[in-house]
Amino acid sequence: MRRGMFISLEGGEGAGKSTLLAGLRDHLVGQGIDLLQTREPGGTPLGESLRQILLDPAMRGMSAESELLLMFASRAQLVRERIAPALDAGQWVLCDRFADASYAYQGGGRGQPMERIAALEAWACAGVIPDLTLLLDLPVADGRARAAGRGDADRIEAEADAFFERVRTVYRARAHAEPQRFRVIDAGGTPAQVLAAAIAALAPLLERAA
Amino acid sequence: MRRGMFISLEGGEGAGKSTLLAGLRDHLVGQGIDLLQTREPGGTPLGESLRQILLDPAMRGMSAESELLLMFASRAQLVRERIAPALDAGQWVLCDRFADASYAYQGGGRGQPMERIAALEAWACAGVIPDLTLLLDLPVADGRARAAGRGDADRIEAEADAFFERVRTVYRARAHAEPQRFRVIDAGGTPAQVLAAAIAALAPLLERAA
Repeated sequence: MRRGMFISLEGGEGAGKSTLLAGLRDHLVGQGIDLLQTREPGGTPLGESLRQILLDPAMRGMSAESELLLMFASRAQLVRERIAPALDAGQWVLCDRFADASYAYQGGGRGQPMERIAALEAWACAGVIPDLTLLLDLPVADGRARAAGRGDADRIEAEADAFFERVRTVYRARAHAEPQRFRVIDAGGTPAQVLAAAIAALAPLLERAA
Repeated sequence: MRRGMFISLEGGEGAGKSTLLAGLRDHLVGQGIDLLQTREPGGTPLGESLRQILLDPAMRGMSAESELLLMFASRAQLVRERIAPALDAGQWVLCDRFADASYAYQGGGRGQPMERIAALEAWACAGVIPDLTLLLDLPVADGRARAAGRGDADRIEAEADAFFERVRTVYRARAHAEPQRFRVIDAGGTPAQVLAAAIAALAPLLERAA
């Protein structure tokens, strides 16, 4: 059995992740790929319970340390219960956020030390690293303008612009540091342009799998 | 303002922690101590939400890594929201379990590496360490016989005897390694004997605080 490919999708508020996820899923399934689509935090019964807590505006007193630990608790479960078994069985996995999000949000946004996050990743993720990470990049003001129409903000969406500027800075720095794994996509384009760019980024993986 | 004293109470299933906690609280309040009594996992809105998840028998698929991270997520919040502010304000804190429980249950019981737990403790607990830890020690079979009358077991109580033997071994080893901080109390005595032993162990702290 050939191991499946693991693709993560990252990006800030209003970058268009949900629209792109739907388009990518259709494309991959259309190519005959057996696909598991999942998300973070969440993706398992434990993770979805933690997601509710993490996004609950009533939890505004949550410490940055607890937030970081909860994100990795959800991730450790998702890797062991869903992602690793799927990849071992030859399925591809498309995940809405993965470990890069903790560097961006809990590291950049909340100021948790990067080496602390790296130490957690080293054991919590059991060596599972995306084969490809698509970063939907957009100026913070543009993303927030798009997201504003969605109704009530969750606990993290309610942060100030400076928080999201730090998130974006870390995402871009990580993409710059790992050009083999990351593809940065200009999220300012139309949905069709964004999807086309993502599909182009996927082509080498489909060739390797063929 | 003189900093308060931090007392943790540890022990396995059926060791009599709840009975002793009530007796200790009465004793300390009777000595004029301004006391915060709390528990782990729990003690904050976040922690109590996590406690429900951690003890839920439906979460039996929880990975050992996730369990460890959730325990420290609850603990990081409890330290920052309740314990450290109380100690700073001169209150004493009496806590039903603290970090030693992660070494015993997630380390001994689940086999998570001790150095991993120590690394988490180093930053999640923000330097807060009990001034005194009372370990209620009892052979596993005796504790389980006592606990058996309580009705449905939670997710952790449902573990096998070998799990609790490993928990006890780690607790005793930690007490042996830190004799200044730990007092081991024979939990096989009557409730009055156990309370008397605990009160004797507290006497030096009350003298220091006088």
